[in-house]
Amino acid sequence: MLPIKTAGLGYYLPERIVTSAELEAQLHIPPGWIEQVTGVRARRYITHETALSMAAAASWRALNDAGLRAADLDAIIGASSAPYQTIPCTAALLQRELGAPDGGSACFDVNATCLSFVFALHTAAQLINAGVYRRVLIVSSETAQHSRNPRERESAVLFGDAAAAAVLTRAEPGEPSAIWHTRFATYSSGAEMAELRGGGSRHHPNDPATTREQNMFHMDGPAIFKKATRLIAPFLDEFFAQVSWQRADIDTVIPHQASRHGVEQLTRRLGFTHEQVFSNLAERGNCIAASIPLALAEAVQSGRVKRGQRVALIGTGAGLTLGAVALTF
Amino acid sequence: MLPIKTAGLGYYLPERIVTSAELEAQLHIPPGWIEQVTGVRARRYITHETALSMAAAASWRALNDAGLRAADLDAIIGASSAPYQTIPCTAALLQRELGAPDGGSACFDVNATCLSFVFALHTAAQLINAGVYRRVLIVSSETAQHSRNPRERESAVLFGDAAAAAVLTRAEPGEPSAIWHTRFATYSSGAEMAELRGGGSRHHPNDPATTREQNMFHMDGPAIFKKATRLIAPFLDEFFAQVSWQRADIDTVIPHQASRHGVEQLTRRLGFTHEQVFSNLAERGNCIAASIPLALAEAVQSGRVKRGQRVALIGTGAGLTLGAVALTF
Repeated sequence: MLPIKTAGLGYYLPERIVTSAELEAQLHIPPGWIEQVTGVRARRYITHETALSMAAAASWRALNDAGLRAADLDAIIGASSAPYQTIPCTAALLQRELGAPDGGSACFDVNATCLSFVFALHTAAQLINAGVYRRVLIVSSETAQHSRNPRERESAVLFGDAAAAAVLTRAEPGEPSAIWHTRFATYSSGAEMAELRGGGSRHHPNDPATTREQNMFHMDGPAIFKKATRLIAPFLDEFFAQVSWQRADIDTVIPHQASRHGVEQLTRRLGFTHEQVFSNLAERGNCIAASIPLALAEAVQSGRVKRGQRVALIGTGAGLTLGAVALTF
Repeated sequence: MLPIKTAGLGYYLPERIVTSAELEAQLHIPPGWIEQVTGVRARRYITHETALSMAAAASWRALNDAGLRAADLDAIIGASSAPYQTIPCTAALLQRELGAPDGGSACFDVNATCLSFVFALHTAAQLINAGVYRRVLIVSSETAQHSRNPRERESAVLFGDAAAAAVLTRAEPGEPSAIWHTRFATYSSGAEMAELRGGGSRHHPNDPATTREQNMFHMDGPAIFKKATRLIAPFLDEFFAQVSWQRADIDTVIPHQASRHGVEQLTRRLGFTHEQVFSNLAERGNCIAASIPLALAEAVQSGRVKRGQRVALIGTGAGLTLGAVALTF
């Protein structure tokens, strides 16, 4: 058990709302198909915003929620599926954007695609518990603006843009907050089921052989769903055995908002009730690494998750990686 | 003090050796200029190799050096300045490349440009110490193949391609190995002094406005050197005060092989002797995040660093970030 508290949460949603009806007209998709297949009615797309401006806006709100200033942070962790720019890391750019003092924080990024936030939480919690840092900001900010492949309907309509941030601190004696257990496992036999092959050294933007297609996201949704469904039940059984919680002990499950099937699977097949599982998928889409912290922030804001309650964060990410965190909020 | 041991080290160098004379002829640079200004006589460039194949080769050697198999790993951390591809993270691709068992390890990437390996070491050490993982592989693999800007001489000739890997485990009782202290500080007022603006969402490869120049590395070497020189003396004074070591207590300093001036600065201005500071810059160039683990691996291989000796890893990275680790090897 780590005495770690989510002291503040914040999020930013781009102003522009894109309905599924709008995308259906634009991409020549039959009316009603998108919501039926993906569960998404609307999502946000950036216009004047950038991944960095969204990250800063979400961070301000998280700091405000925690009653802290940027100068109070001693570490900033960027936790998105893709950086704002290759060099330097997004966390360093965010330090400047927030006006956090030069030299006052250690800045680095953690990347595990859709599980980036949860891996960052995993490492930040250990660093705070060990006394290395006292107040850590984790920010996930995602835009799929140029990565959606209009020829791959199911994934192109799934993603929404958003940023979400959390400020972590040590829980003071008497405070209920804690992180009880985290578990991750990567099954790289599924590495090709969700890919964006460009952007790195494999298909560098300046390599004349690199194609537009390689710079777009590709997903074999049915294959991921089949593989994840097979793996996640034993993964969660072991996770709950390790933490000594029953599924019924959990007040709220915050799943990665992967897709309608992905979220429903948690209810139908994995032993949670419909009331336990929080979803913002219909209005937000799949916000990649920002999905889990955004859902948590919205669940807290709406009063669905209260201080002292038991929460499980459960997600899948490209890799294929499964991850789960058991915490008292 | 964390009882953490570097159980194995390995590296891979591309076969092709590129001398400074060759680059001088190619880039119309006066003979002798490159070595005089940067301190680099030769560096390696990939031909048939890729960042992923180099990462795998370095990892095999590190596992072999540790007497372990890929199946023994419970976490794999990719720690490079740029990924192999945007999605999934490089660590997941490496799990498959190594034939490590599906589901047997947690895979994620850590990125802080040239300090990526050192940040990964920082987090892995805490995770092992907390009992979360037992055997962690950290791999840095770098190629600047398409990112060198021939119009920016000083940086274009500086970089070399390489990969280096380390296997970390808990030190058994009686073993001398330990990590005594780590310290990082980011000074984002210097964020624009070393940049690669492309590759992420800011200047996406598919955005028609993105230029070839934005996908190349840009560095204001003199400005970084001036800023780092001013910051690093007080940073190291505080670091050594925190760890209660004198500079003379250290057997070997492994600096980031940033440039001739960067390495010499440690000797001349920062209170180390020429004998203490290890450099492979002349034959390897600046290998970005692979620089520090490669230098450590070469120092150990050559007998320069022996088990039980005191080592300091000291580096600067884009951000601008300073980092230092005090360890007993």
